Amino acid sequence: MTAEIAETAETLLKNKQYASLRDMLSAMNEADIADMFTHVPEESIPLLFRLLPKDLAADTFALMETDDQELLIRGFSDSELKEVFDELYVDDAADIIEEMPANVVKRILKNTDPEMRAVINEILKYPEDSAGSLMTTAYISLRPEMTVSEAIKRIRRTISDAETAYVCYVTDDNRKLMGSLSVKNLLLAQPTEKIRDITDKSIICVHTHTDKEDVAKDMNKYDLVTMPVVDDEGRLVGIVTFDDAIDVMQDETTEDIERMAAISPIEESYFKTSDISHARNRIFWLLILMLSGVITGGILKQYETAYAAVPILASFIPMLMSTGGNCGSQSSTMIIRGMSLDEIHLRDFFKVVFTEIRVAAIIGVILAAADGLWILLTVGDGKIALTVSLSIIGIVVISQLIGCTLPMLAKRCRLDPAAMAAPIITTVVDAASVIIYFFIASKLFAL
Amino acid sequence: MTAEIAETAETLLKNKQYASLRDMLSAMNEADIADMFTHVPEESIPLLFRLLPKDLAADTFALMETDDQELLIRGFSDSELKEVFDELYVDDAADIIEEMPANVVKRILKNTDPEMRAVINEILKYPEDSAGSLMTTAYISLRPEMTVSEAIKRIRRTISDAETAYVCYVTDDNRKLMGSLSVKNLLLAQPTEKIRDITDKSIICVHTHTDKEDVAKDMNKYDLVTMPVVDDEGRLVGIVTFDDAIDVMQDETTEDIERMAAISPIEESYFKTSDISHARNRIFWLLILMLSGVITGGILKQYETAYAAVPILASFIPMLMSTGGNCGSQSSTMIIRGMSLDEIHLRDFFKVVFTEIRVAAIIGVILAAADGLWILLTVGDGKIALTVSLSIIGIVVISQLIGCTLPMLAKRCRLDPAAMAAPIITTVVDAASVIIYFFIASKLFAL
Repeated sequence: MTAEIAETAETLLKNKQYASLRDMLSAMNEADIADMFTHVPEESIPLLFRLLPKDLAADTFALMETDDQELLIRGFSDSELKEVFDELYVDDAADIIEEMPANVVKRILKNTDPEMRAVINEILKYPEDSAGSLMTTAYISLRPEMTVSEAIKRIRRTISDAETAYVCYVTDDNRKLMGSLSVKNLLLAQPTEKIRDITDKSIICVHTHTDKEDVAKDMNKYDLVTMPVVDDEGRLVGIVTFDDAIDVMQDETTEDIERMAAISPIEESYFKTSDISHARNRIFWLLILMLSGVITGGILKQYETAYAAVPILASFIPMLMSTGGNCGSQSSTMIIRGMSLDEIHLRDFFKVVFTEIRVAAIIGVILAAADGLWILLTVGDGKIALTVSLSIIGIVVISQLIGCTLPMLAKRCRLDPAAMAAPIITTVVDAASVIIYFFIASKLFAL
Repeated sequence: MTAEIAETAETLLKNKQYASLRDMLSAMNEADIADMFTHVPEESIPLLFRLLPKDLAADTFALMETDDQELLIRGFSDSELKEVFDELYVDDAADIIEEMPANVVKRILKNTDPEMRAVINEILKYPEDSAGSLMTTAYISLRPEMTVSEAIKRIRRTISDAETAYVCYVTDDNRKLMGSLSVKNLLLAQPTEKIRDITDKSIICVHTHTDKEDVAKDMNKYDLVTMPVVDDEGRLVGIVTFDDAIDVMQDETTEDIERMAAISPIEESYFKTSDISHARNRIFWLLILMLSGVITGGILKQYETAYAAVPILASFIPMLMSTGGNCGSQSSTMIIRGMSLDEIHLRDFFKVVFTEIRVAAIIGVILAAADGLWILLTVGDGKIALTVSLSIIGIVVISQLIGCTLPMLAKRCRLDPAAMAAPIITTVVDAASVIIYFFIASKLFAL
């Protein structure tokens, strides 16, 4: 759908029908316009952007791809630059600046008015993944001694209509957080009521240095639209809004998924990533995993005589290894996701291990039966059938054990479970599978 | 941390210190109490629950695990049941009821007051994954001709203090959605202003039958706290709140992750799932994948003579197959996640294919070089080194091609890309790897 809109915009642009183009854009939502910009050729972006009404332009700018933002900024006159950034929310401005090269940053800060510059610098000084770097300072703070009508006057003064506000925060003389008050309850209160009396005193908040992933988790757990951020003295310094929290959750999940597939996490979106970085992000683990393949190969080599004597043995290696690999990745996936959703904790270690053993037993027996039968029917050699079936049971159990323990051990060692999972599990599982197989084979065939 | 609290509660319970236990619970947040209930033995839950203050009890109940809810309901007297459900929000009540066995549902509906029963039945009649089943009917609707002060009076009448409300919706005589108005803007407006004049006329809404995943995506895209849900006539029938949208996103992601690891999606959390269902959810794909292993093995069998003649050839099979498998899963993961984040679309098919080919070329050459060198150093046989290196390049390219095309084809055929990915890709990639390897080997060694 956005693709079609992009085309329409393109044609209007070609035919210089700027008036109708402006009307079309003005009627659109900023998210859709930002979306559209990803479908039009780079060279048309600046002109299209200049056709946007001032306020819509800023909202759209905040949602655009980093490199398109940079492209625009480089093309902006100082006054255009100031215009856009003065319209932005400080947290969006800070996010954008964090992504820009130094010289661009300089130019931006030079052209933003002093108090915004101060706020941006404030936010920029917090560690990248902290609540502080995620928060906005555009929050409503009220004093307990205010009356409702005074509070409303204050809100009128302090926030623009454009800003979305759902919850007010009540602070004492030292800006210490005392509680929260939803805008709705403010609306329903009598003008003469004291803020103190309608404030919700139960405080849920995070510290400026809390990891943003934990902020998102807490906001989800407590169903908060906004999460107050306090400093070491418990003073309110900002709030994190639910939309930023959702983005954090999705980024973290994408990272987990990529790590599970042995890909080093990627900052930019698929098409914004260069071939070289795509390759770089994948080659590292491939080399490690190849080494693991070499190790397994080495082990396999030990048994050359075995499959020289009974060549058919070798033909079951792929099936056994892939079964082991799949069982391992199934278990590890269950555990990793469970841990990141806080459904599984380290103290559940043995509970998990025993569950996986029981499940493995069930799965192992079924697979062994199916496979043994298959071999009897096709190869017709009971000894081989027995060898493979016994191996499968052993392989399934070992693989699931490795698959469930490694991620938990990783977490125990403060390592990322997802990062550990894929590569190491494959290595260990593959090696184990081959050893189990040929151990059993050598016993049964007295090799 | 919740584990410790659970223990404290347990001891207080054992020592019958109900007063202090009640104080402790009353001071806690419903999310934390629900969390605690997952750590205490089942038999203590009913007693602990009865110690909760009435309003806190309902909020906690809504957040508890399904089977604990059922446990409580079965223990409730009719009056207790009515007490809890009258305090619940309708959407929570509906969600709970959807999970309960028929006889329990009957009893619940028998004991809820008529209008709530009506609403619940209303919600229950929508398809399970639709916006209708996710929405709540507890929204604020205003009329354009109202003045701000009239609107506030209406809100006072219609919603309880407990309910969170961020956005009001403006509807005409036929309940048709005309626009939205944030509570904040209502607060900032003059009492005499007409609602019509401060309403935001740009309407973003979903249909009762829109898939809940799309609802969540749109709410995320447009940063909405609540999404209005309309029927075929465009009449406002309910709203979806951001917290429910976040839960939907996480469930969908978990499903994707499980599918990518060849696990059939699981409804309950890890520990709530029985061993049998765990096994059932994993065995299906394992059997399919085993078949794939058998196929690969069959292909391998064709080349028995080859590795009987040059036994060392077989020892490289694991390395080559795992490399192929990993490249395939890397590509498919990138594409699947890209598609579910709407970064990659079907129309990008060829763009993706060419990207993957270029990336594969880079990766293939590096891996081939590394591996060829390794073999020269260890085995010291140039012919084998060449065979393996050439195979790697071929395998990497083919694997990434399969890995990126299959998920897109799956989507093209309206199948779940994640579900297709793991199994089929492994099968095809493994087979392809073996064939490429032995084709090259047979040429070079004239086998």
